[in-house]
Amino acid sequence: MAEKIGADTRGVFIISVTPFTESGEIDWASVDTLIEFYLGKGVSGVTILGMMGEAQKLADTEAATFARYFIDQVAGRVPVIVGVSNAGIDNLVSLSRTAMDAGASGVMIAPAAGLKTEVQLRDYFATVFTRLGPEVPVCFQDYPLGTGVNISVPTFLQLVDDYESLVMFKHEDWPGLKKLQQVRRACDGAARRRISILCGNGGLYLPQELRRGADGAMTGFAYPEMLVEVCAAFFAGKAEEAEDVFDSYLPLVRHEQQIGVGLAIRKEILCRRGAIGSAAVRAPGPRLDRDDIAELEGLLQRLERRLAASGKPSAGIAA
Amino acid sequence: MAEKIGADTRGVFIISVTPFTESGEIDWASVDTLIEFYLGKGVSGVTILGMMGEAQKLADTEAATFARYFIDQVAGRVPVIVGVSNAGIDNLVSLSRTAMDAGASGVMIAPAAGLKTEVQLRDYFATVFTRLGPEVPVCFQDYPLGTGVNISVPTFLQLVDDYESLVMFKHEDWPGLKKLQQVRRACDGAARRRISILCGNGGLYLPQELRRGADGAMTGFAYPEMLVEVCAAFFAGKAEEAEDVFDSYLPLVRHEQQIGVGLAIRKEILCRRGAIGSAAVRAPGPRLDRDDIAELEGLLQRLERRLAASGKPSAGIAA
Amino acid sequence: MAEKIGADTRGVFIISVTPFTESGEIDWASVDTLIEFYLGKGVSGVTILGMMGEAQKLADTEAATFARYFIDQVAGRVPVIVGVSNAGIDNLVSLSRTAMDAGASGVMIAPAAGLKTEVQLRDYFATVFTRLGPEVPVCFQDYPLGTGVNISVPTFLQLVDDYESLVMFKHEDWPGLKKLQQVRRACDGAARRRISILCGNGGLYLPQELRRGADGAMTGFAYPEMLVEVCAAFFAGKAEEAEDVFDSYLPLVRHEQQIGVGLAIRKEILCRRGAIGSAAVRAPGPRLDRDDIAELEGLLQRLERRLAASGKPSAGIAA
Amino acid sequence: MAEKIGADTRGVFIISVTPFTESGEIDWASVDTLIEFYLGKGVSGVTILGMMGEAQKLADTEAATFARYFIDQVAGRVPVIVGVSNAGIDNLVSLSRTAMDAGASGVMIAPAAGLKTEVQLRDYFATVFTRLGPEVPVCFQDYPLGTGVNISVPTFLQLVDDYESLVMFKHEDWPGLKKLQQVRRACDGAARRRISILCGNGGLYLPQELRRGADGAMTGFAYPEMLVEVCAAFFAGKAEEAEDVFDSYLPLVRHEQQIGVGLAIRKEILCRRGAIGSAAVRAPGPRLDRDDIAELEGLLQRLERRLAASGKPSAGIAA
Repeated sequence: MAEKIGADTRGVFIISVTPFTESGEIDWASVDTLIEFYLGKGVSGVTILGMMGEAQKLADTEAATFARYFIDQVAGRVPVIVGVSNAGIDNLVSLSRTAMDAGASGVMIAPAAGLKTEVQLRDYFATVFTRLGPEVPVCFQDYPLGTGVNISVPTFLQLVDDYESLVMFKHEDWPGLKKLQQVRRACDGAARRRISILCGNGGLYLPQELRRGADGAMTGFAYPEMLVEVCAAFFAGKAEEAEDVFDSYLPLVRHEQQIGVGLAIRKEILCRRGAIGSAAVRAPGPRLDRDDIAELEGLLQRLERRLAASGKPSAGIAA
Repeated sequence: MAEKIGADTRGVFIISVTPFTESGEIDWASVDTLIEFYLGKGVSGVTILGMMGEAQKLADTEAATFARYFIDQVAGRVPVIVGVSNAGIDNLVSLSRTAMDAGASGVMIAPAAGLKTEVQLRDYFATVFTRLGPEVPVCFQDYPLGTGVNISVPTFLQLVDDYESLVMFKHEDWPGLKKLQQVRRACDGAARRRISILCGNGGLYLPQELRRGADGAMTGFAYPEMLVEVCAAFFAGKAEEAEDVFDSYLPLVRHEQQIGVGLAIRKEILCRRGAIGSAAVRAPGPRLDRDDIAELEGLLQRLERRLAASGKPSAGIAA
Repeated sequence: MAEKIGADTRGVFIISVTPFTESGEIDWASVDTLIEFYLGKGVSGVTILGMMGEAQKLADTEAATFARYFIDQVAGRVPVIVGVSNAGIDNLVSLSRTAMDAGASGVMIAPAAGLKTEVQLRDYFATVFTRLGPEVPVCFQDYPLGTGVNISVPTFLQLVDDYESLVMFKHEDWPGLKKLQQVRRACDGAARRRISILCGNGGLYLPQELRRGADGAMTGFAYPEMLVEVCAAFFAGKAEEAEDVFDSYLPLVRHEQQIGVGLAIRKEILCRRGAIGSAAVRAPGPRLDRDDIAELEGLLQRLERRLAASGKPSAGIAA
Repeated sequence: MAEKIGADTRGVFIISVTPFTESGEIDWASVDTLIEFYLGKGVSGVTILGMMGEAQKLADTEAATFARYFIDQVAGRVPVIVGVSNAGIDNLVSLSRTAMDAGASGVMIAPAAGLKTEVQLRDYFATVFTRLGPEVPVCFQDYPLGTGVNISVPTFLQLVDDYESLVMFKHEDWPGLKKLQQVRRACDGAARRRISILCGNGGLYLPQELRRGADGAMTGFAYPEMLVEVCAAFFAGKAEEAEDVFDSYLPLVRHEQQIGVGLAIRKEILCRRGAIGSAAVRAPGPRLDRDDIAELEGLLQRLERRLAASGKPSAGIAA
């Protein structure tokens, strides 16, 4: 079984898609290939059932079954974090227990939609942390564009001070570079205990985030090897080289970062790379048409040319 | 088994709460008493698993079990509509099938959060109606304050024209008196087929809505007998008397209409009236404190005095 | 010149409409009659250029001219508060100076749209208070439904602690009875300096707000005499009588409280009562049609009957 | 005097910043240098008083004076479009008249915040177009992220059909590539009259937008020469070369595209390039701190290296 996540967790936690068949069932064979794909690219961990994992469209029982199966197949090779955000706290707690019992290394929680003031937000997490108990490591997902809920740094720090099991901050406020840095400086391991900070938001600002103190990425770009290489180079002291690698993929990062249709693009690429058997997104969800595909192929060809120019191996999927 | 809902459905469809024990489990004994309470007050039908039924906080399996149990206990005495709104269309369809198989008279669907343009909204319902098929009567819930999704009258009428199974409009846009009237006039049974229009929004404008062409109420006020009496009087041609009855309850209607805490108030009253065994709301949810209770008791005493002054029987619950 | 507003300000500050001619110009003659109408009903003060005063549709120069004219005509008989909320702080400060120089008793400020966290909100007001200086008494308008900005009680209290010129809280969060009470208890004149609390939101919960510690109303109901009578009775120790008066107007309070069209209703009544010469609302704005007028007349007739039944003089405007 | 904008307008309309002195006054000397900077980079036109021009923080009289001065200084060398969006339609019309009288080539209008349904949106523009008359060419700004108002393609096309003076679509919905293409195909000059489509959103997807049928860019990137070169190359049939140029600037495009702080970044670069005398943003507005500056300088150095590597002249501002 993999270790629990904690203050020193670092690297790339890939946000996993949930593979579906064309008819919308979970595609279990693709779960297997997807896991090997991710692990083969060198990720440090995997986060399942996030928003880009279409968690909100799974039935509760499906989600639990998926989490158990996924963790079983990863078999402790890397830590698995399970997204458990839910409109009901009972459901959130129930899925958390299922996940931890199955061997998850932690859970990820975003504030429930509809929380208005930061006191309400604190009260919400007080209930959540109390219900979960101190043994479940929690990653706080700060994604206002998706949740509509904003948190300021002092309120977040108060949660850190009050709940030991809050060990990770998933940064994806936008723009949020200053917020990330403020959290980093406040949770420096001296004045206040350290927490891990991983960055989402499609990775669009990853080099800047690393320079400002992030410990890595937690996002789902269809080329996990880029995220891995960027983080490795950065932590090896080669920030400029890391950013060079990043910039060569940036046109595609930006393309995949389109809210909604971006998920269909990501799944299309994963499908072409052989990671999953179908690019299907559950309804309601986006679907690529002929124009979208042609556009994507153009971008993939351009990426291939840049990779070739810098002596990297082809991903071999452009057309 | 009760009839399916249709163009001529009329009267009061009470929005049922979901009773919980203090520890947050579904309180099955209270489901029984609640049903008899509602039916004893003369409602024409019941709608379960709406937003005020805390549907979003139930696990999928709980929701299905609750729907089956509820419909069984009502046993065809009145029609039951089941709220099936869900972030995933598969889940929506699945609960709809469960409900219809169990004897529901129709389902209620609000547009999924995140739909932005009215074309997206139409596409969403195209998928929903296609997936449900023509045999499942649908009530469209128009509640922008809760969903964030707005629909204009022409777009709604196009849905009416395109999908025969759309038979009911739950009006709860606010302000929305003009919209209700426009839908009524457009779906008059002549130029276009008739649809039923029932009004939510806590009933705050019920007399005005009836005068503008509504067929009744679909809301959850803790005194269903008021809604029943107002509708009955109105349809008996006594609009002014109907409004007199309504106005005497208006201070409490308004009090219960506070988003969030209003549900705790409603459950507190239902509990005092013996309809349910506990006023518990599932987390995250509001809870009344001492000040709230004192305030509510003051309002209940004032209601009692008004009822007494007009020769009505006491509800006997003020203190 | 009237006194500045302060910790002990109490009573009814009517939110004034801005009268326009049918062609959309400011109707100066109606400003005169409107002022005499408000003062004749016994209000304690007037607030101009609020949201229901269509401030955002006035040109800056119009707003300044209107403020100066209005204050001149009131001529110190009651205090006048001027709404100065603006997307630009320079403009806000400029109108504040104009207003205070002309004899205003204070200014009202709502947080600028787009503030997300409570730290951003505090920073915003830090700039505003610093720019205004300590001599300009400020009423903080807490109206999230209109601004999209939420503030929790601790953040508000910190503003009270930091800025002496913050002397009044315009409560119109909804639901917000508990928040009002928390502010009242925290700013009790003992543990923390007292501030005045006046309630907006159309007055829909005025009796409850007074019982929870409000000092009065700051709203624009077309029957200011009701607000005045309710507050006077309440502060004379007759809370139940106060609420009786309120309840008799409640159907109309509720009707006028419809966001958007409510302003057209309010102006129509004020026009019928002779307070202003035209019910015109500036574009973009609502306009009553024949159905709306008939509905309103029905509600006015019902009010007349209730007034007559309780021995009050007729407002004489129903038809 | 420059020509009015029309169906065939093409190229780069730069969204101009509004230069301020450190104390927040309009910096007229910088207006002069800024105009020469923009024109020197080869832009086809300039759009002033857009959202990134801080229009909402200017007093009405300032806005009018600024528009007149700017148009005078451009002196007909390129067309100038004036942003006139306003909460009040009278103000919108008034600024439009001022601008057109001064020699503007058209006005840009975004739907007013608070419009909910697409029928409301259509009614709003019906009033606007009627009030403006047929002589004022209008660019419709579709920027839901900023306005909160969404429009679907059929509703937009209906506006095109109804109002001849609607000649340009400023595309900045996000994601919006498909919408752009649908508008392009519908307004193709055959089935329906042609309109011009220029793209905003910081230019983040400019190559894709051009390939999908855009006529150019209307955004404010601090390197207008890149936008000009990309559009010129694209329309010369060199789409891949155009995208190469774009991609080399993409890291900075993405950096400047951060809502809020992005404006401070843009002004900082323009200041370093000598286009304006101060990077000041009016309050409330962002301000760069030492970390932001260091980060920006790193990005500028990286850009310099890429420009050098491709044989382009240095912008000479990195440190």
